[in-house]
Amino acid sequence: MLRSKAKETRSAGRFLRTRMGLKRSKKIGLPPGTLVHVGEKHVDKVKISVIDYSQTSFQQKEITNISELEPFKESQTTSWINVEGINDVTAVEAIGGLFHLHPLVLEDIVNATQRPKIEDAEDYLFIVLKVLYYSEESDEMALRQLSLVLGPTFLLTFQEGPGTLFDSVKERLKDGNVRIRKSGPDYLAYCLIDTVVDNYFAVLEKLAEKIEALEEDVVTDPSRQTLQEIHGLKTDMIYLRKSIWPLREVVNTLGRGESALIKDATLPYLRDVYDHTIHAIDTMETLRDIISGTLDIYLSSVNNRLNEIMKVLTIIATIFMPLTFLSGWYGMNFKDMPELAWRWGYPMVIGIAIIMATGMFVYFKRKNWL
Amino acid sequence: MLRSKAKETRSAGRFLRTRMGLKRSKKIGLPPGTLVHVGEKHVDKVKISVIDYSQTSFQQKEITNISELEPFKESQTTSWINVEGINDVTAVEAIGGLFHLHPLVLEDIVNATQRPKIEDAEDYLFIVLKVLYYSEESDEMALRQLSLVLGPTFLLTFQEGPGTLFDSVKERLKDGNVRIRKSGPDYLAYCLIDTVVDNYFAVLEKLAEKIEALEEDVVTDPSRQTLQEIHGLKTDMIYLRKSIWPLREVVNTLGRGESALIKDATLPYLRDVYDHTIHAIDTMETLRDIISGTLDIYLSSVNNRLNEIMKVLTIIATIFMPLTFLSGWYGMNFKDMPELAWRWGYPMVIGIAIIMATGMFVYFKRKNWL
Amino acid sequence: MLRSKAKETRSAGRFLRTRMGLKRSKKIGLPPGTLVHVGEKHVDKVKISVIDYSQTSFQQKEITNISELEPFKESQTTSWINVEGINDVTAVEAIGGLFHLHPLVLEDIVNATQRPKIEDAEDYLFIVLKVLYYSEESDEMALRQLSLVLGPTFLLTFQEGPGTLFDSVKERLKDGNVRIRKSGPDYLAYCLIDTVVDNYFAVLEKLAEKIEALEEDVVTDPSRQTLQEIHGLKTDMIYLRKSIWPLREVVNTLGRGESALIKDATLPYLRDVYDHTIHAIDTMETLRDIISGTLDIYLSSVNNRLNEIMKVLTIIATIFMPLTFLSGWYGMNFKDMPELAWRWGYPMVIGIAIIMATGMFVYFKRKNWL
Amino acid sequence: MLRSKAKETRSAGRFLRTRMGLKRSKKIGLPPGTLVHVGEKHVDKVKISVIDYSQTSFQQKEITNISELEPFKESQTTSWINVEGINDVTAVEAIGGLFHLHPLVLEDIVNATQRPKIEDAEDYLFIVLKVLYYSEESDEMALRQLSLVLGPTFLLTFQEGPGTLFDSVKERLKDGNVRIRKSGPDYLAYCLIDTVVDNYFAVLEKLAEKIEALEEDVVTDPSRQTLQEIHGLKTDMIYLRKSIWPLREVVNTLGRGESALIKDATLPYLRDVYDHTIHAIDTMETLRDIISGTLDIYLSSVNNRLNEIMKVLTIIATIFMPLTFLSGWYGMNFKDMPELAWRWGYPMVIGIAIIMATGMFVYFKRKNWL
Amino acid sequence: MLRSKAKETRSAGRFLRTRMGLKRSKKIGLPPGTLVHVGEKHVDKVKISVIDYSQTSFQQKEITNISELEPFKESQTTSWINVEGINDVTAVEAIGGLFHLHPLVLEDIVNATQRPKIEDAEDYLFIVLKVLYYSEESDEMALRQLSLVLGPTFLLTFQEGPGTLFDSVKERLKDGNVRIRKSGPDYLAYCLIDTVVDNYFAVLEKLAEKIEALEEDVVTDPSRQTLQEIHGLKTDMIYLRKSIWPLREVVNTLGRGESALIKDATLPYLRDVYDHTIHAIDTMETLRDIISGTLDIYLSSVNNRLNEIMKVLTIIATIFMPLTFLSGWYGMNFKDMPELAWRWGYPMVIGIAIIMATGMFVYFKRKNWL
Repeated sequence: MLRSKAKETRSAGRFLRTRMGLKRSKKIGLPPGTLVHVGEKHVDKVKISVIDYSQTSFQQKEITNISELEPFKESQTTSWINVEGINDVTAVEAIGGLFHLHPLVLEDIVNATQRPKIEDAEDYLFIVLKVLYYSEESDEMALRQLSLVLGPTFLLTFQEGPGTLFDSVKERLKDGNVRIRKSGPDYLAYCLIDTVVDNYFAVLEKLAEKIEALEEDVVTDPSRQTLQEIHGLKTDMIYLRKSIWPLREVVNTLGRGESALIKDATLPYLRDVYDHTIHAIDTMETLRDIISGTLDIYLSSVNNRLNEIMKVLTIIATIFMPLTFLSGWYGMNFKDMPELAWRWGYPMVIGIAIIMATGMFVYFKRKNWL
Repeated sequence: MLRSKAKETRSAGRFLRTRMGLKRSKKIGLPPGTLVHVGEKHVDKVKISVIDYSQTSFQQKEITNISELEPFKESQTTSWINVEGINDVTAVEAIGGLFHLHPLVLEDIVNATQRPKIEDAEDYLFIVLKVLYYSEESDEMALRQLSLVLGPTFLLTFQEGPGTLFDSVKERLKDGNVRIRKSGPDYLAYCLIDTVVDNYFAVLEKLAEKIEALEEDVVTDPSRQTLQEIHGLKTDMIYLRKSIWPLREVVNTLGRGESALIKDATLPYLRDVYDHTIHAIDTMETLRDIISGTLDIYLSSVNNRLNEIMKVLTIIATIFMPLTFLSGWYGMNFKDMPELAWRWGYPMVIGIAIIMATGMFVYFKRKNWL
Repeated sequence: MLRSKAKETRSAGRFLRTRMGLKRSKKIGLPPGTLVHVGEKHVDKVKISVIDYSQTSFQQKEITNISELEPFKESQTTSWINVEGINDVTAVEAIGGLFHLHPLVLEDIVNATQRPKIEDAEDYLFIVLKVLYYSEESDEMALRQLSLVLGPTFLLTFQEGPGTLFDSVKERLKDGNVRIRKSGPDYLAYCLIDTVVDNYFAVLEKLAEKIEALEEDVVTDPSRQTLQEIHGLKTDMIYLRKSIWPLREVVNTLGRGESALIKDATLPYLRDVYDHTIHAIDTMETLRDIISGTLDIYLSSVNNRLNEIMKVLTIIATIFMPLTFLSGWYGMNFKDMPELAWRWGYPMVIGIAIIMATGMFVYFKRKNWL
Repeated sequence: MLRSKAKETRSAGRFLRTRMGLKRSKKIGLPPGTLVHVGEKHVDKVKISVIDYSQTSFQQKEITNISELEPFKESQTTSWINVEGINDVTAVEAIGGLFHLHPLVLEDIVNATQRPKIEDAEDYLFIVLKVLYYSEESDEMALRQLSLVLGPTFLLTFQEGPGTLFDSVKERLKDGNVRIRKSGPDYLAYCLIDTVVDNYFAVLEKLAEKIEALEEDVVTDPSRQTLQEIHGLKTDMIYLRKSIWPLREVVNTLGRGESALIKDATLPYLRDVYDHTIHAIDTMETLRDIISGTLDIYLSSVNNRLNEIMKVLTIIATIFMPLTFLSGWYGMNFKDMPELAWRWGYPMVIGIAIIMATGMFVYFKRKNWL
Repeated sequence: MLRSKAKETRSAGRFLRTRMGLKRSKKIGLPPGTLVHVGEKHVDKVKISVIDYSQTSFQQKEITNISELEPFKESQTTSWINVEGINDVTAVEAIGGLFHLHPLVLEDIVNATQRPKIEDAEDYLFIVLKVLYYSEESDEMALRQLSLVLGPTFLLTFQEGPGTLFDSVKERLKDGNVRIRKSGPDYLAYCLIDTVVDNYFAVLEKLAEKIEALEEDVVTDPSRQTLQEIHGLKTDMIYLRKSIWPLREVVNTLGRGESALIKDATLPYLRDVYDHTIHAIDTMETLRDIISGTLDIYLSSVNNRLNEIMKVLTIIATIFMPLTFLSGWYGMNFKDMPELAWRWGYPMVIGIAIIMATGMFVYFKRKNWL
């Protein structure tokens, strides 16, 4: 069992550098704008799909050749171009060329270690988010990068790999008579961001569940396993914090309505997402405080436990050491020990032993140790 | 007794997710404005009551059909429409339709996990507060959401369930000749908010009382029970903080008088509530500091206690180990141990034993261990 | 002795709610402006005295009937009306009526749990301060509320009970040729505030003295008593902080000279008080840091001490356990133990025992345990 | 082995003053503008090299006499003058004279203990950075100062000693058709700063790697070595923080484009470096949090371990103390101990011993100690 | 040795109130502007000296009568009037009268417990600084107050006692051809402030040296002495912080050039001092962080050490307790113990003893305790 524990820790450690957005050292000295994929590789082949819709039309197709995207660029209908997989830098470069994206933007898209941010390039808004996944089987939290490029009639989304998070949005798009079909790409972007933020709550709930389970253990039975779980949760919180805090600024910027790409009707919705983001941050900070408190309690509990162990040892030693001395005393071989020959010598010693043991017992009872 | 302690912790843990305003994950992917009740269900049937008053008139009635509210909407008298229970989303939706509330506002009303906030929708002000209850029997703090919609001639209040908190305000309304009857719905809203804030002090007082009780235990008799109570209080403070801090911003916004719905005569009263809110926050932060300090003291006390236990053990061992060795020595069976045959051998050993024990005793006395 | 310690803690705890400005829950649901005395009752009967002075005149009298105050209200000379005791709400109400004070101001005056604050009501400035007393006999810090109402020609002061703090100011007023007699009520208010702030230093000095005494104990002889004193000082600091920080804002507002009631000539003096307030805050924060550090050191010291106790135990056990085993060994009753019959058997065992004991002694010496 | 550990700590300590930018006390009382080299001496002889380029020309040469720099000062091509070694104050003074640098700037250049900063002297921008090196062989982090003086057509760089960090930039300069050749000295400065910032990530990655290794040890096998490594990493982080935080302000100032020396086309690149700097700070703060957490876990682990040691001791003592007493008891030499003569006396004692041992074993099993 | 340690702590404690700028309680109730010397008395007789210089003239003299200062007040040459000793309030008052200083300024000059501050009185600038001394013999840090009054043609400096800090400035003044002789009193003030700030680095270096020495001890040999030194350093840092932080604001205000008394040519130098001040603050904060870390490590080390002590005890107990039991067993006096009579009984017991001891040894080896 110890072995499996060790393995857990190791796995927690192994992903540290990936999670931190490090592993980018291979880029040192390269000229800016050079596209190098940084991050884990989640797909072998990039998958590009388009959903093109207006209030009256709806079309969904898979793209195999970048040039197929051409018609969607200029059409007046809203086109959502979704790219799953960013390790194929040539594909990203081709799309970037088609939509006239700045080289530094492309560099950011293929680098999965960005902080959440928003950049206004006048022709388009470039938004980087972190999507949080919680995988039940590995019991681990994972961060994936989502880049959005919001243009006047199109929305490009770049994901690190395939995911089902936006399936509900896709379903809603199929219905002809909903708000999303009547609105432009800005409202679509809002829907995606809203889904990402709502998903944070699912992960926070998962973490809260784990903390609930911990809270009982920590006072009544603090083990090394508990410690490891607290450590794991604390580390998770640190990563979570790192991706969720900058998101606040991103959503706030969007909601201020400074870009012409975002219509006024969408602003109340973006402010609603902002409220949710604040709530998520709030919840996260509260969980952080609780976990920190839990570690303090753990330390106190371990010390409490030590006290209890030492009490047992002290009680045993204090009762038996004098008794052992007593019996040792009358085990001495002096020729001339008168007690040994007394008629009531042995019963007297039995009496003394009982009195000593009882006395100690009463003493500890009074000290509240028993 | 241990069992009952464990139960306490478990119950503290069980409500974590509810208290945190989590459990909203069922909403992921739903279009915005979809009304879904989030939170605990406190009533089976929604209860709607109206108090309609002016300086000269007063009328109180229960509503069974939403359409009965119609006349109160346009009347020049002040109408307080109080809804107890928000789990019946259709009722809330109907009221919302009648008073032209925005779908996002209705969504917030039925979601009991909101942060305190204020939104100015020009036609009405939407305010979300957290009411704090302290239940004596379960010895637990509970948070309930209170939403207020303040219009030109009406005030809608939505509570999670029935409560007696506003009974005193209702009593005051029955008197014909008080300020509240002469003022509009803004003053009524002030009265309710004032009651909510005053109620925080009642809960803070309860917490202070518990801390007082703890402070004595923590130095003189630090037990596992004490630790659990400290942990519980710390967690309570974290939740309290989460609902009381944003309240400050809400009340401050109200008191700045930027909305036409709030008359100038009401502003000094709102600023007074603001002062009370600051005082409540201050008091809470002070209590937090004291609890934190208490935990430090607890840890020190536990270590102190360990020292005392170890002193007992060390004293016993240090006195009896040499004595046991001495008696063991003369229990050896060598043929040729001259001391055993000496006339004064046994008395000599008795003497040595007394000297050793006395010496140790003096040593510990000097070291201030006794 | 243990008993007396417990009492100390209890007394520290008993005043928690009072000190925190709690105990106001009896006000829940009352209409605003209702005068209810909140706080401890320090006097049985309110005592009102007036000092009326100008550069040329000086008059001091006790007031028994509120109507006697009438002439002082309009006179061009400066009138200082000092009220000791705020539990008689009717008296306060009568004075308030005479000087046209707002009901909310009166409510604040009789509620001794206010935070320091300043309110500009155009006709008068309303200032709430906390006076800090250190009582030598009970070795306890006490906070008393002082409310000032500064009008064009009068200064009202409301104290919770009798006190000698302002005696020096009263003495100075009797001299005809000092600045205070030549200036108006604003300068008088400055003098009182200056006295209050200077008094903080006296209390801080007292606390510093206690900390000095503690610092020696904490490293050389950390006892439970020390812990209790650290805890007490920490708690004192928390209360002190709560009343001294808002004072900064109050004095700063006064010194900005935005009110017409404060003459320009008084401003440099108010800025000087501001400097003193900053200095007091600074000093307090430094003391807080030192006390916090002291607690850390305490914990380390306790652990150090445990190490020393354990060293004693380990040394004793390590020396005597092998010896006891040795002697036990030759206490065995085997028929056939050749050593027992050897001529040099006993001297050999004596030798072994000496070597073992010496060896252990050298070992511990080398380990630096002795 | 202990000895080697001690050495490690000592070496960590030895560089403290150097790293802190202290050792400048020799300057006390000197008039300002006096050039005194402060810092370690990394080269014996200063090495000056020039790279002069335009879109069409490229020239690289070593300088032995300062006067050789004269032609590069006024030429319209971009001149990068790189000085390696700042301990030769006369050389620095000569260059400063040639390019009309302010004496205080020169004083800063030769003082390797500056904080990162930027100064706008109208004719030139003076920038101080800290370059971070990680030396594999000594397993130590080193900080070197880099000063840049950016003029209209030239860029002066002063390094503490030789280094290979900018080799990649030099390579890029040799290519005729890259952006760097088409741009002026501001873009060159950007490239150098970008390289410096990217290099921070390499060091952060190294630190993250070490933390990963630590995280496993800290729970499963907390040794004194682990503690020392945590301490070392914490100290490294403190230094890192000190040089990386002010860099943020420097790069931000550059990116605001307030200086005419920086062309508009370079601004997006500088803002990109700013993003990287923020990311580096973020990553560093996260690593700091993780290391802090690691120390907490370490302390808990050590206490856990103590518990386990004490359990072993207590189990042994609790099992054998009663048994030893039992055997001691029947080792007493009373004449009249009837049990000794009983037929089943010895088997009875064997039975009692087995029951006692088993009982204790079951007890500890139940207490979950085994 | 213990005794001497106690003394050290006591001495550290004794100066607490002095260092904190307390001991001013004797001023309570005095009218403002009353000159009372607050602080330690460093000289018996005040010493006043004047250095009067211009680019062409230089004159240095001791003053015995205040009236001798009259000519220096109006002369167009720069006059530096240096007062050593502020306990003679009449001398200070006389100088103050001569130069028309405000009573509150004089009050501040004779009160050595001021915070660093700057006040612009139009006719002159009043600056209070703290000079830091490190005394090698007492191994203690001392703070002395330095007040500067900068007028159009004169600079008054008030020091608490004699000092050699400004000797280098005096030397520089004697040279005819340096900047300081060509500039006015503002540049002279700059030189003094620069010297004060540079001196901070000397003290910080001293502290860094002590920390270096501590860092080795803390992991390898954490003793009570180490703890005391950490505590002392922490307290030193707290005082240092208190005097160095407000200095930043003072120097920043000077460097903004808002006063006509400071010529534009002096501003770059003042900004340079500002940089140094920031650097000193930075360094101090870093040292603070390192000391805090050191205390954490100390606590961990002490616990580590406890573990090692307990391991020794447990190993000894675990090896010898079973052996003692074994030998005790065969010391029993049962008539009928067949083993005692066996031929191989004794060798068998020897064998069992060896096996038990070896087994335990192997067990501990495996547990990595040996």
